[in-house]
Amino acid sequence: MKPFYSLGLDFGTNSVRALIVDVSNGKELATAIHHYTTGKKGVILSRNPNLARQHPGEWVKGAEMSIRKALAQAKKRVKGFKPERIIGIGIDATASTPLPVDEHGKPLAFHKPFAKDPDAMAWLWKDHTAVKEAEEITELARSIRPQYLAKCGGVYSSEWFFSKILHCIRTNPAVTDKAFMWIESVDWIPAVLTGTEAPGDLTVGICAAGHKAMFNELWGGYPDHDFLEQLHPRLAEFGSRMPSHVRTADRSVGGLTKAWAKKTGLKEGTPVAVGVIDAHMGAVGAGVATGTLVKIIGTSTCDIAVSPSDYPLEDIPGLCGIVDGSVLPGHFGLEAGQSAVGDIFNWFVEYIRPDGKKGTHEALALEAAKLRPGESGLLALDWNNGNRTVLVDQKLTGLLIGQTLYTTPAEIYRALVEATAFGALTIIRRIEEYGVPVEHVVNCGGIADKNPFVMQTYADVLGRPMNVSRSSQTCALGAAIAGAVVAGSKQGGYDSFTDAQAAMTGLKDMVYEPNKEAHAVYQQLYELYKTLHDAFGTDEWQGNLGGVMKELIRIRNGVKGI
Amino acid sequence: MKPFYSLGLDFGTNSVRALIVDVSNGKELATAIHHYTTGKKGVILSRNPNLARQHPGEWVKGAEMSIRKALAQAKKRVKGFKPERIIGIGIDATASTPLPVDEHGKPLAFHKPFAKDPDAMAWLWKDHTAVKEAEEITELARSIRPQYLAKCGGVYSSEWFFSKILHCIRTNPAVTDKAFMWIESVDWIPAVLTGTEAPGDLTVGICAAGHKAMFNELWGGYPDHDFLEQLHPRLAEFGSRMPSHVRTADRSVGGLTKAWAKKTGLKEGTPVAVGVIDAHMGAVGAGVATGTLVKIIGTSTCDIAVSPSDYPLEDIPGLCGIVDGSVLPGHFGLEAGQSAVGDIFNWFVEYIRPDGKKGTHEALALEAAKLRPGESGLLALDWNNGNRTVLVDQKLTGLLIGQTLYTTPAEIYRALVEATAFGALTIIRRIEEYGVPVEHVVNCGGIADKNPFVMQTYADVLGRPMNVSRSSQTCALGAAIAGAVVAGSKQGGYDSFTDAQAAMTGLKDMVYEPNKEAHAVYQQLYELYKTLHDAFGTDEWQGNLGGVMKELIRIRNGVKGI
Repeated sequence: MKPFYSLGLDFGTNSVRALIVDVSNGKELATAIHHYTTGKKGVILSRNPNLARQHPGEWVKGAEMSIRKALAQAKKRVKGFKPERIIGIGIDATASTPLPVDEHGKPLAFHKPFAKDPDAMAWLWKDHTAVKEAEEITELARSIRPQYLAKCGGVYSSEWFFSKILHCIRTNPAVTDKAFMWIESVDWIPAVLTGTEAPGDLTVGICAAGHKAMFNELWGGYPDHDFLEQLHPRLAEFGSRMPSHVRTADRSVGGLTKAWAKKTGLKEGTPVAVGVIDAHMGAVGAGVATGTLVKIIGTSTCDIAVSPSDYPLEDIPGLCGIVDGSVLPGHFGLEAGQSAVGDIFNWFVEYIRPDGKKGTHEALALEAAKLRPGESGLLALDWNNGNRTVLVDQKLTGLLIGQTLYTTPAEIYRALVEATAFGALTIIRRIEEYGVPVEHVVNCGGIADKNPFVMQTYADVLGRPMNVSRSSQTCALGAAIAGAVVAGSKQGGYDSFTDAQAAMTGLKDMVYEPNKEAHAVYQQLYELYKTLHDAFGTDEWQGNLGGVMKELIRIRNGVKGI
Repeated sequence: MKPFYSLGLDFGTNSVRALIVDVSNGKELATAIHHYTTGKKGVILSRNPNLARQHPGEWVKGAEMSIRKALAQAKKRVKGFKPERIIGIGIDATASTPLPVDEHGKPLAFHKPFAKDPDAMAWLWKDHTAVKEAEEITELARSIRPQYLAKCGGVYSSEWFFSKILHCIRTNPAVTDKAFMWIESVDWIPAVLTGTEAPGDLTVGICAAGHKAMFNELWGGYPDHDFLEQLHPRLAEFGSRMPSHVRTADRSVGGLTKAWAKKTGLKEGTPVAVGVIDAHMGAVGAGVATGTLVKIIGTSTCDIAVSPSDYPLEDIPGLCGIVDGSVLPGHFGLEAGQSAVGDIFNWFVEYIRPDGKKGTHEALALEAAKLRPGESGLLALDWNNGNRTVLVDQKLTGLLIGQTLYTTPAEIYRALVEATAFGALTIIRRIEEYGVPVEHVVNCGGIADKNPFVMQTYADVLGRPMNVSRSSQTCALGAAIAGAVVAGSKQGGYDSFTDAQAAMTGLKDMVYEPNKEAHAVYQQLYELYKTLHDAFGTDEWQGNLGGVMKELIRIRNGVKGI
């Protein structure tokens, strides 16, 4: 049997990555990155600090360039490599990153009069111009459609689909008049590759629809007409044009067009999978499964778990989203996350750093690793960028408690790392509380690969072994897995994600095992973290904090044996 | 009329200072410092980090050396200066710094077998070996003599007289057997200069007795025999030998001996005032009076106020001490303080400093001064070294809240400065609540002289003008004032402290005026400080802190106009 390959395309904020993978064993043959060139690393900014846009032309050019580079690399590296052995293509992208398109599915940004209007481009996930509209949507849903919020953590975000469209309706009549509909980038890209971008032909993914646009079969799909109309009649009009084909990623949106085959060197008709949000694909590439939670740890984290959809699953308060089929077909996909993790360490190192040599991540982690849990008497809350899960509150801020006149930078660094671990534990406990077991944790992302001190702390705090994904590009790998699945076993691929994951994903040999003694101390510290968490993060908590500082000292003295 | 002078001797932890002052106008003619030479800058340390002792020989030598140097300097500087025109001597020293003496009042440390035994030396104010004994004394007093604690803030400290003696009784029988009695350094020094150190001749000060040894006329003087006996029979024995002459500082303990006159060059018989604790003398030298609070701001602060003893004064919870005549005769002396002020800024600069150039006090203060109150969204508690007033709890620690990913070192520095100002306000409010008005605040000490940013912040937070004492050596000046008072008007001095202060103390021209807008913002921030103060510092507080972070953001946005 000759080798078969699949192609994963991972559209990030600043670049697109193409990854060619051997479907039999997940071996990564070639990987090529194309960096976006417009604006600041592909991000169009303005005087409004909340605005962040992207021109869809970047994706078209980026797809072509990265695929060509990856194919050239594979040819160079693998003797006898043939592009036609690529049996399927998968795609992931950031979300919610919607863009307005005309009645042919062509982005408004491709029309000359709108070419430089940021509102006609894609509204990047991190665009925060629609804060007011998000509050309005949340308020209305709370009063007349609470079920909409129950699936997305109780708050509709300014980063999401309808907030952005409503803001555009309110502020840019020209774009609003010209737009026929709005579509997520993660859905528009597969459509372009397969020539299915015309509204009638369009197939979109359940992942972005469910997590960002309140789509759920429970209420028949997207939010209803009345609801959207109460927000704005134009929003209801856009709502009425949402695609009717909403699918999981084991379904193809079509075959690669002749034009795309020609310009890339891929085979015409190669099936292209339904697009999936990047973090969700990352979880697939890291081996997410029932009982296995995937943590993608970088500047922030995304935590993804799944639960078989054969069994009912209660709404989980504070989770950003629970969507049937968003990660793996046949499973509820659960998305949680921490608004800042690496960003908090970076803040301390880059802003508050003690000095040049001693103030690097490496030096601080080395020093911090020598300390024992509880020894510093410090405790922190990991809310420097708000709290995404389980409090869903962007207006929360950081907290550090227990400082003395002798507190060192390494102690603070360690307390910040521990705080993010306590935040991670809070998410896991919430998920487990609602009947989704977390037996294994697989980590991926920059911090999982590069910071063993952080990983060991997570093992000790969570009281579970920390595995690390074998691949360091799990999003693109997840997309390639989707490519292998839409190809199907008859074409040399797989008939299910489970089979594809079994063959194509793996773990690193290095496992961070929890230290029992450390875990015992962290269990005490977590009680204090939880007290502060509830005291500062909720309106219900009532009580007294008079014992917190003393309990930290008691734990410290216990550890030090004094 | 020829000029008359007085001499102030200020015995610090590391050195003694002699100051010669013109009694007519407070002009400082000459000042000489003698640094102690044994141990580490005069402090005898051991492997026990809580131990801090001082050999009384340092004071004897230091008095002689500093007086001789000051006289030489005066002769050089002032034409026609004559030592015999020094009409009185005043003395201040650290407290509680007790030492064991024999039946002749001779320190045990002067006996050869005990010369190197730290327990036979003076137990410096900052010695913390007697923590257990302090708890025992507090507990017993709480159960059978609550009135003893009511005058010293509710807790008897490990730094104080009886704690140290009891610890010595428990741990060093040789010293305990040899000791006839224990005496404060601030009382022993004047006795030595006047040859009155024999137990029968001894006159001691109300200041140290009242603030450190639970002396109060209300219960007939020192703690009673039964109370001390329940702690230890030997303690009761020492208690029975406490001096019966306990006086205010307008009284002389005697005249300078012939021997001391000879070795220093001063006139034999020059009256020596009763000794007073250094901070209290500092308040006198800064002009403390009814309505005027003096803040001595250095690594920590001491806040001293007075209230006429014609009117009854309720016990003030959390104040370290209320003693009739301890600061000014005819007035209750009130002592409060913050365990760390400059030490907190030093901690940030020396331990957590951002980097070499930008991380100095000057650079951070300059940067912090550009910020507006409330702009950073930060708030801190000033408890890195515990809280002396009003919570009286050494086991409290620091807290910083409101950090984002953009929080800068200058913002944290400013938050720490503001926290100490809020702490200062809490003390003033407590004092005022109990009927002691604070109309003026006079600051002295290193920070008052050197850090205008801190002083302006204090003015803005306290909503009162901040004056700074003219003299930068207020302790020694206060002692010189006592010298002028014990000389009396007939000898060219004064008959009251009030008269002497009017002539000899003054303020700098520079006054830090409160900014109304800043004060308005600080009033809002103080409410939040008070909430955290009560929530973390007391056991009674019950409530919810869910609004604290958001209120900080609301204030921040209001200040920024966003």
